[in-house]
Amino acid sequence: MTKRLFDIDPWVVRTSKLAVADKRLQESITSIGNGYMGMRGNFEEDYSGDTHQGTYLAGVWFPDKTRVGWWKNGYPNYFGKAINSPDFLSIPITVNGENVDLAKINYSDFNLSLNMKNGSLHRSFIGEFNTTKVKFEFDRFMSNVTQQLGLISVKATVLTGKAELILRPMINGAVHNEDANYDEMFWELKDHGEQSDQHYSLTMETKANPFGTPRFTVTEEMQNLITTDADYTRASEISELAVAEKISATLTANQSLTLLKQVAVVTSRDVPEAQQLAQTTAILQAAQQKTYAEHLAEQDQVWAERWEQSDVQIDGDPAAQQGIRFNILQLFMTYYGEDSRLNVGPKGFTGEKYGGATYWDTEAYIVPMYLAVTKPIVPRQLLEYRYNQLPGAFHNAQQQGLNGALYPMVTFDGIECHNEWEITFEEIHRNAAIAHAIYDYTDYTGDETYVLNQGIEVLVAISRFWADRVHYSQRAQKYMIHGVTGPNEYENNVNNNWYTNQMAVWVLKYTLEILNKVSSEKATELAVSQNEQSKWQDIIDHMYFPEDQELGIFVQNDGYLDKDLRPVSTLSPDERPINQHWSWDKILRSPFIKQADVLQGIYFLNDQFTLEEKKRNFDFYEPMTVHESSLSACIHSIIAAEIGEEDKAVNLYERTARLDLDNYNNDTDDGLHITSMSGSWLAIVQGFAGMRHHEGKLSFKLFCPQNWTNYQFKINFRGRLLAVKVGHENSKLTLLSGDNLELEVNGQSIVLKTDEDKVVTN
Amino acid sequence: MTKRLFDIDPWVVRTSKLAVADKRLQESITSIGNGYMGMRGNFEEDYSGDTHQGTYLAGVWFPDKTRVGWWKNGYPNYFGKAINSPDFLSIPITVNGENVDLAKINYSDFNLSLNMKNGSLHRSFIGEFNTTKVKFEFDRFMSNVTQQLGLISVKATVLTGKAELILRPMINGAVHNEDANYDEMFWELKDHGEQSDQHYSLTMETKANPFGTPRFTVTEEMQNLITTDADYTRASEISELAVAEKISATLTANQSLTLLKQVAVVTSRDVPEAQQLAQTTAILQAAQQKTYAEHLAEQDQVWAERWEQSDVQIDGDPAAQQGIRFNILQLFMTYYGEDSRLNVGPKGFTGEKYGGATYWDTEAYIVPMYLAVTKPIVPRQLLEYRYNQLPGAFHNAQQQGLNGALYPMVTFDGIECHNEWEITFEEIHRNAAIAHAIYDYTDYTGDETYVLNQGIEVLVAISRFWADRVHYSQRAQKYMIHGVTGPNEYENNVNNNWYTNQMAVWVLKYTLEILNKVSSEKATELAVSQNEQSKWQDIIDHMYFPEDQELGIFVQNDGYLDKDLRPVSTLSPDERPINQHWSWDKILRSPFIKQADVLQGIYFLNDQFTLEEKKRNFDFYEPMTVHESSLSACIHSIIAAEIGEEDKAVNLYERTARLDLDNYNNDTDDGLHITSMSGSWLAIVQGFAGMRHHEGKLSFKLFCPQNWTNYQFKINFRGRLLAVKVGHENSKLTLLSGDNLELEVNGQSIVLKTDEDKVVTN
Repeated sequence: MTKRLFDIDPWVVRTSKLAVADKRLQESITSIGNGYMGMRGNFEEDYSGDTHQGTYLAGVWFPDKTRVGWWKNGYPNYFGKAINSPDFLSIPITVNGENVDLAKINYSDFNLSLNMKNGSLHRSFIGEFNTTKVKFEFDRFMSNVTQQLGLISVKATVLTGKAELILRPMINGAVHNEDANYDEMFWELKDHGEQSDQHYSLTMETKANPFGTPRFTVTEEMQNLITTDADYTRASEISELAVAEKISATLTANQSLTLLKQVAVVTSRDVPEAQQLAQTTAILQAAQQKTYAEHLAEQDQVWAERWEQSDVQIDGDPAAQQGIRFNILQLFMTYYGEDSRLNVGPKGFTGEKYGGATYWDTEAYIVPMYLAVTKPIVPRQLLEYRYNQLPGAFHNAQQQGLNGALYPMVTFDGIECHNEWEITFEEIHRNAAIAHAIYDYTDYTGDETYVLNQGIEVLVAISRFWADRVHYSQRAQKYMIHGVTGPNEYENNVNNNWYTNQMAVWVLKYTLEILNKVSSEKATELAVSQNEQSKWQDIIDHMYFPEDQELGIFVQNDGYLDKDLRPVSTLSPDERPINQHWSWDKILRSPFIKQADVLQGIYFLNDQFTLEEKKRNFDFYEPMTVHESSLSACIHSIIAAEIGEEDKAVNLYERTARLDLDNYNNDTDDGLHITSMSGSWLAIVQGFAGMRHHEGKLSFKLFCPQNWTNYQFKINFRGRLLAVKVGHENSKLTLLSGDNLELEVNGQSIVLKTDEDKVVTN
Repeated sequence: MTKRLFDIDPWVVRTSKLAVADKRLQESITSIGNGYMGMRGNFEEDYSGDTHQGTYLAGVWFPDKTRVGWWKNGYPNYFGKAINSPDFLSIPITVNGENVDLAKINYSDFNLSLNMKNGSLHRSFIGEFNTTKVKFEFDRFMSNVTQQLGLISVKATVLTGKAELILRPMINGAVHNEDANYDEMFWELKDHGEQSDQHYSLTMETKANPFGTPRFTVTEEMQNLITTDADYTRASEISELAVAEKISATLTANQSLTLLKQVAVVTSRDVPEAQQLAQTTAILQAAQQKTYAEHLAEQDQVWAERWEQSDVQIDGDPAAQQGIRFNILQLFMTYYGEDSRLNVGPKGFTGEKYGGATYWDTEAYIVPMYLAVTKPIVPRQLLEYRYNQLPGAFHNAQQQGLNGALYPMVTFDGIECHNEWEITFEEIHRNAAIAHAIYDYTDYTGDETYVLNQGIEVLVAISRFWADRVHYSQRAQKYMIHGVTGPNEYENNVNNNWYTNQMAVWVLKYTLEILNKVSSEKATELAVSQNEQSKWQDIIDHMYFPEDQELGIFVQNDGYLDKDLRPVSTLSPDERPINQHWSWDKILRSPFIKQADVLQGIYFLNDQFTLEEKKRNFDFYEPMTVHESSLSACIHSIIAAEIGEEDKAVNLYERTARLDLDNYNNDTDDGLHITSMSGSWLAIVQGFAGMRHHEGKLSFKLFCPQNWTNYQFKINFRGRLLAVKVGHENSKLTLLSGDNLELEVNGQSIVLKTDEDKVVTN
């Protein structure tokens, strides 16, 4: 069922074949971005075959009106969507009057490659136009030096014959989302035209909406720099919703023309509309001081620093090597912590599906990785993001008639923007993940300033939510949580999801613990009465957790064991993935688990359970798990590694590492699974290398997969940089910088000293 | 919380007050119809205040596109809606250039009355225009003699001054549904204009849709007959989507003008478009041979026959008397069995809410009443309707990946047209109600021709569905039904809803019983193998039913007893109805029951349970039931009567009898609760009079509510007409026609002979 479009290579994602039937998949994988803006791997020139156009600007969204059969009290009125911004990529091209369109013309020597060292995309082919042959070379990247700047270069070289070449670099505002509920445009034109000096700009604003959410104004400006020894002309072409420049030249054999389309993009998130044009012009004026090569060299430098800290090297398995680098690249192209108003969207800049920009994925899967591979400020920005959105979370709880704060399932600004009752109202375990990330950050970095000041406000607000959301069952003499959807979204509206109940109690415990540490001023401000704390303690002491003594397992939720329990192996291949072959009814009633649920709890609260408990639950749940969420396999891989099921751990790793490159879930055509890309890193570092942190202390439990020679990675930890290289017999740990560090490796306590390798036996 | 806009009167619903703030409510209650078409109590003249315009044609619908956040496999693509047809009611009026608009002009002597004897609506007022006063009298009804004919009469009489009067009777195609998902029009113009002889017509067609559902063409034609001794002129006014005639006259004091607007309406359901105009013209030509009074006399005759058979008389409680007649009137105006392609829509011709035209309400609440108050052909038409829609039901099951037939929750043509997974996919108990109506019809009428020929096909198809929908729990060694929504829609996606499990088993049993009776040809055709029958028997023998031994009750569904159980009396009045004050999350987790659930099962399968069981379950569930479905109180009333809780039974009856007249659920502004209107009849006849039928034998258990003097009703039963008059001490039963009948009254067996009263002691 997997599909691999690109060659295996350690640093490049390359193919010599245009995937006509899988163009959307190819586009998803060749998406690029710089945390501020990005786009799918669409072509610059026209392409009349199947394609999914997508250019996105971080934080720019639209509240799409949504209607359901029967409205539920508490629903938000709209479905917030990451929207297609005016398209600044397009450069339609004709040769001798014929439109260059790879769905129609004859061509050869097609080459498409994403350079993972710097996030630049290259494409080339030789187009045939009767007896004329023209080689086209396209290069582009979104600058990480100046985030508002995109650089797109096209070089046309005539190989044989004579080419009357016309290029029309443009900015096109006539864009719409494929997932628009009623095919409506989300934008309206404010201004467009030619500025001085052959600069062209387009300013658009998102349409007015009845929901009171902000409108966004965007100005995009381009400047086209031409290099050629042939004569050429240029002329403006302004149409209703687009600006273009028409560049015409006649080239003979061996003559070439290079067009460097520099684009500056600013939005009203940063720059008021009145100043936008001045800003884009200034950006372009600065940009034109450097050649494409010079810009690229700077880009290389930024990325070299990122890779220096975050690269994972795998010897002996080039496919795995490519997978992990691709994932790290795409994650960093989506988010690198520059703007605390942003987060890691599930599709980043690679598609529209799911709507919204922020899911609990960030706290559950991104924070633990970023803590180790970026400076602490990056994950801290992610925590600040939630702190800043507390008002929205209060609003969401209030919508449900509940106290405290309920962080949204899907949001741009803190307010829930998605209405599916079983998710919006019920998948409330997300609230606990928000709290857990605060713990993770604090315990990993040792930086308590966040938790004692902002974090505790979040914790108290979430605890108040939980305390109101539980109820006391007289019959059972226990607190219960009814009506939830756990991480396994293939069951909805269940009672006493073990994971949710566990995490709720954990949050209450952790909040009480932190409350004891805050300043008296802060305590006064928080005003958590003794009564309230006692109530929380009572919930902690008397929460109900479904368990089965006979099987010795934690039960996913009430009633789960009454199902027709059977392993995934009883499914025939043509039923999988079940979410594409089965009705929702059948899925809900089945025993099959979409993603780690009980095991997610064991992962988060790792130190609370015995190895035996971990084994029994893994053995029970793993066979029934279909891993149809991209967030699943990595957690199972980590637990498998911990309980010594190394083959299983490796097998699950492979699924997460190349999920998109090999299209495992048959849905990468919609976009990449950005938030789950950290999964492969987690599987290696927390799985194979067994990294844990507990009470501020690091530990490892190392093994090297059979078919790998060795692997190595680096991590930041409390001001140090560690390198870890894991082989089959021995492993080597090196403290590259920072103070001596005591840690536990394979059960042994060791002390690392600067630049002193420590070799341990596995 | 109730609101009563109309005076108490045994045969009239009358008010002398225009309810400006409750105009929609007033409109709902003054809706009229004739089973073929109908309309809300909108005004003929313009009204600029809040109003909800609605004119509907039976069986004419549109598939409105619907979008939800995350699509579920198995959803239908559209939400079928009863749509506003071109409006043929309007007659804008001006006096001396001033628009007659009760929201703006001064007026007095307002009178609005619905005549329950014949379904005609009368309205009058005196309008003041400076020194001129004009009395307006409006009368209308939809003919039950010629269903395609509507008659609307306006008489204007000048009381003082001089009036330049202009009336503009019109047919207006510019209508849209308030509940249209994207405010779109559902109609497009085909043709309109003035025909010969001052006939005006408008032909419209529902818009093309991408779902393959049929389009409808409608022609409406009007002829305006004027009676006046003043001079008048008439002229045509054709605009983009409307036709109107402008009738101008100048009247002096004591002069009057009467306009009789006769309207003929035909649809492509009955008449091909090419013949529609000829047909409407012919209807109008026939109609103009009679005066309004003559038409009304014929209408009276039709209704007299209906009332003769169905009237319920209550002495001593005029409010109750009015309630039951209002309900019977509105039911018969919605459906009287003329067309087996039609059914009883939840709002009839009185509103748009809910979409669709057919719910399980028909089988559960309408059939049992119609069996007794109409000729058997009427309920049989309702059964034929489902038989004819078997292909749709097979399709619906297939959509869920299941065998057999799943009757839709909401439909026009048999195919599910509503997408709310917890309803569409899960509220499958509806399938059992379809089967139960077959039993009800067969046992009540003694007519086995339906069940042995068509009915058995429906039963087998439904049984196959149930047999595939259950699963076997190894752990419990029982069959279970997971993932359902019971009649109590305030819980969703529950396991082992007692009612659903009971009804599923009942269907399997009844199907096996009927299978033994069918002809060998039919048996061959049905091809239910011995294996299949054994499987059904195994399910019957090993179904799990949640019960609580300690409490001695049937448990609504797994986990229900773990809730925070508390009675409705603990709710404060400002929380009720909870569906208007609580979030859906809070409702789902609460113990509060929307409508009879376990008790619905006890009602349907009445003979299976002991009085003691009925008492314990009533005592447990009634205090937690909020009756926020209009279908609830009548069932509780019937059970209360049976277990001897007479006060409770009467109290619950009052809620159902005047649900709309007193706006109990605060939602009658959206339209009347048509399908639940049978509830008051059921509460009287099955409740107070305790009527049951079992194995073809009738029985009664009679009591008369304290504050009534007596009540009487008639019923059809197997070719007989019985009159039953119930007093406090004695009751009287009379066989008005038909053969002698043996029945059981208050536990005694008696034989009724023609025209011989039988007096029994209560």
